[in-house]
Amino acid sequence: MSNLKVLPLLEPEAPEAVVPCCPPLTERPFTAEEAERTARMFKALGDPVRLRLFSAVASHAGGEACVCDISDVGVSQPTVSHHLKKLREAGLLTSERRGTWVYYRVEPSVVAALGKMLGNLG
Amino acid sequence: MSNLKVLPLLEPEAPEAVVPCCPPLTERPFTAEEAERTARMFKALGDPVRLRLFSAVASHAGGEACVCDISDVGVSQPTVSHHLKKLREAGLLTSERRGTWVYYRVEPSVVAALGKMLGNLG
Repeated sequence: MSNLKVLPLLEPEAPEAVVPCCPPLTERPFTAEEAERTARMFKALGDPVRLRLFSAVASHAGGEACVCDISDVGVSQPTVSHHLKKLREAGLLTSERRGTWVYYRVEPSVVAALGKMLGNLG
Repeated sequence: MSNLKVLPLLEPEAPEAVVPCCPPLTERPFTAEEAERTARMFKALGDPVRLRLFSAVASHAGGEACVCDISDVGVSQPTVSHHLKKLREAGLLTSERRGTWVYYRVEPSVVAALGKMLGNLG
């Protein structure tokens, strides 16, 4: 037995609270608040470079990637980092620093909620 | 028998060709071309007013609505028309003029393709 407390050295970077939203599109018109929240996510995906990066993270081995893994989209590494941060702020990615690199992972509940919202129209 | 040709008085406003896109996000990184095409749709949904209007059309009785039906989102009728046109240009809505009004309808194949692309991450 020991009194030593194990302190986590690598705190995950907590994303802002993002609650998956909203009812299926066919159910009823969105309220202003729902639209505000959801449009933020769509806006984050509404940039071609950001969408490529998002699909690169989503399809990467293990479901996560760092900037070092996905810098082949024709923009500089700082630009990649900037876009990944935007996706994280929109609640679509989570991130965790491990050593030198920040690893990004798709937030499945949020993305699935978007998919569900759209998917019932087919 | 008659030689008279029936000319359609009310031609549907043909949307630009929009092919539903792309592979599920987890499959592989999007190409630049796929990202360009898909980001256009997300960008159209990335505005709160536009998203409210989109959900208003999608949830309206009969699956279609004209500007006259959905002008309760706090913006002027010309602004509503402008946003609906943007959604149409992105391939998310189709439109048809009937008499005085243009009726908008959600393009289910396109929206379902977006949903499918996102929905497999849950």
